[in-house]
Amino acid sequence: MKIPPVKGTRDFYPQEMAVRNWIIDGWKKVSIRNGFEEYDGPIFEHLQMYQIKSGDEIVEQLFSLKDRGGRDLAIRPEITPTLARMVNQQINSLPRPIKWFSVPRLCRAERPQKGRLREFFQWNIDIIGVDDVLADAEVIFCAIDYLQSVGLGVNNVVVKISSRKMLAAVLRSIGIAENDLESLYAVLDKRSKIPTDSFVEMLKEKITDADIRKKVLKLMDVKSIDQIGSCTELSDAAKQSIDELQRLFEFLNVMGVADFCTFDIGIVRGLAYYTGIVFEIYDKSGEMRAIGGGGRYDDLLKQFGGPAIPATGFGIGDCVLGILLEEKGLLSKQLSQQKFDYFVAYTDEQFFNKAIEIAAKVRLAGKSAVFGYKSTNLAKQLKQASTQKALNCIIIGQELSEKNELVIKDMATGQQQNINVDEFFRQIRS
Amino acid sequence: MKIPPVKGTRDFYPQEMAVRNWIIDGWKKVSIRNGFEEYDGPIFEHLQMYQIKSGDEIVEQLFSLKDRGGRDLAIRPEITPTLARMVNQQINSLPRPIKWFSVPRLCRAERPQKGRLREFFQWNIDIIGVDDVLADAEVIFCAIDYLQSVGLGVNNVVVKISSRKMLAAVLRSIGIAENDLESLYAVLDKRSKIPTDSFVEMLKEKITDADIRKKVLKLMDVKSIDQIGSCTELSDAAKQSIDELQRLFEFLNVMGVADFCTFDIGIVRGLAYYTGIVFEIYDKSGEMRAIGGGGRYDDLLKQFGGPAIPATGFGIGDCVLGILLEEKGLLSKQLSQQKFDYFVAYTDEQFFNKAIEIAAKVRLAGKSAVFGYKSTNLAKQLKQASTQKALNCIIIGQELSEKNELVIKDMATGQQQNINVDEFFRQIRS
Repeated sequence: MKIPPVKGTRDFYPQEMAVRNWIIDGWKKVSIRNGFEEYDGPIFEHLQMYQIKSGDEIVEQLFSLKDRGGRDLAIRPEITPTLARMVNQQINSLPRPIKWFSVPRLCRAERPQKGRLREFFQWNIDIIGVDDVLADAEVIFCAIDYLQSVGLGVNNVVVKISSRKMLAAVLRSIGIAENDLESLYAVLDKRSKIPTDSFVEMLKEKITDADIRKKVLKLMDVKSIDQIGSCTELSDAAKQSIDELQRLFEFLNVMGVADFCTFDIGIVRGLAYYTGIVFEIYDKSGEMRAIGGGGRYDDLLKQFGGPAIPATGFGIGDCVLGILLEEKGLLSKQLSQQKFDYFVAYTDEQFFNKAIEIAAKVRLAGKSAVFGYKSTNLAKQLKQASTQKALNCIIIGQELSEKNELVIKDMATGQQQNINVDEFFRQIRS
Repeated sequence: MKIPPVKGTRDFYPQEMAVRNWIIDGWKKVSIRNGFEEYDGPIFEHLQMYQIKSGDEIVEQLFSLKDRGGRDLAIRPEITPTLARMVNQQINSLPRPIKWFSVPRLCRAERPQKGRLREFFQWNIDIIGVDDVLADAEVIFCAIDYLQSVGLGVNNVVVKISSRKMLAAVLRSIGIAENDLESLYAVLDKRSKIPTDSFVEMLKEKITDADIRKKVLKLMDVKSIDQIGSCTELSDAAKQSIDELQRLFEFLNVMGVADFCTFDIGIVRGLAYYTGIVFEIYDKSGEMRAIGGGGRYDDLLKQFGGPAIPATGFGIGDCVLGILLEEKGLLSKQLSQQKFDYFVAYTDEQFFNKAIEIAAKVRLAGKSAVFGYKSTNLAKQLKQASTQKALNCIIIGQELSEKNELVIKDMATGQQQNINVDEFFRQIRS
């Protein structure tokens, strides 16, 4: 009986697994050098966890299930709610600031398409306990540090940055009521993703006052932070949030990554829980979805039953990133097929068991070793060694029984040398 | 609103995550040096995948869900069905033997207890395409290689080995009908897990003929491979399977791990798909569940719609293993808290931005660096550096503005030295 894989999932054969490991190892390395520690939570949580603040889109895409006690669970579509739960659980014992990262497997029942699958891996970086925009700059730096490390430079990627706090304050100055802000964000977030006339139509439904709508459209057209003031008279809160945005760009400049960053008022983010700086990372040439994004979410821990503690972070998935790396030819350069240190061969069947013994000892000494399962002649074994990309071949023959020596053949140069068995193991152990 | 984690799951705070990473990295390292390549599949499969051959216990413990099209899915309780599916899908292009490993996250709705959780990680090793018992010996060697590498020696652990093929052949010789074998395995598998009289009662229900029952009980009492022949007259098939068992032990001896291994006719395995050698690994002193187990499953690929290809492998979970390592004091020795290479401090607030710039450059150069978010005096910063276990402190002050020098303080010795900025970056890059 042949059963297919589930739609929108991936099988990781060794070649794809090597790519996945290479991407995830890179995330981990950059996280650690930026001072973050790894955490993880369960693959599922109580369903309610995602009904609090994740936003409608996420809730619609949940893979939900029941445990044996009939409780409603869901496979995690993001890890931030788990992070909030975990931090709240140990809020009194965790030293702050909390700088944590994770590389969770996540599932969303989306329509599978290029760069969007039902199961994916996502790098998450979060700083909890720092209200200063310096923390936002640091998480953005961290994303850029990774992108640079894999060869994606200023010509390839751009970080588009805005501020929900600024947007809220300016929209209030323009005349949008507090209660209408959240649903308006959802419309504004669509701006770059749908045709202009559709966007204007959606905005008309949302904002009936033509004067206010005009101001909002003008605001969404500003190209720099300086232009924001030209749309309306700014409240003190609006001015303060603009200063904060400017400070963020100053920090990014100090960190040497300003060239990657640009202000873009169209960045609003789909998730409901953002409260301050928001950003998304894009491929410069393509029309792909965002590589990743993030922002400040100062109210989330409180909404999950904890104290009010500021937080900021981002998520970068492996799907769009993987496509981009592939397109830019940045994968093949870095990945080569697994190689083994030694293939253990024998000149005659009488040495078969000895070959297995030596292979076992090589492994116990910490080096990789393989051998053929079926006894065959030496020429065929050397061919196997070559097919399996062994770096060296250990040949077991009369040299062993007569002189306690192994013959080591360098598979690249073809050169052979004899070495005393004990000396050989001394060498590979050190 | 405070929501608890789901029963039977674990939160991995940085400390627990370090343990998990250390265990899984060890699995990966040993797999690679034994010549295995990593693969992985999706977290869920079509529900049917687990109804084919996993056995009743697994099916009862499935976390099942539906996708948006209403199809029945289940979170993977084991990865072998996925392995069978993946191998069958590419059976014509994969070079054989296939030596693969995986470290999947698995979920089973079991009653949570010591060493048994609803979500866990399991190391899987499989060799597909080798019918020789040498492959079974190799997977057993691989498990022992890992156990030894983390400090679990012959005094701590034992690999108990038997053969389903031998058991089937001898039971047939005794007079058990072919059709009764599978359900009898389930009873025999319980033998060491329940009181003797309960076992005898279960056996009475299963085997009504007192003479046959007596022979089965006698068989289950044999202590060595040599004694099997004393229970009944052996068929040729039985003799052959006994020879195979003996060859397995010879190979284990050649590989230098015979001291870890013992024949135990009580090892039957719960999973329904085993066809040959079966084994389980136990803590020698404790009364814990098996650390892991495995065996040969020559019919599985065929049952999943592929060709008849022999296969053998094992699974070792992280729960019982983790408890054992903890009890033996083998975790703390190997794990230390994350340390940072550099804490970047400054003597005066005017150098705050410069400190951030230097920290960013250190990270881009590949070393880990942290800094304080709030400007404060140097003494407090040095205390922070010490709390955060920084190995060195970079102190930014007038030396930088006047002489382009950094002050580097070794946090262990307290010694300070000045170094030219460019020279410093040259050094850490190399």
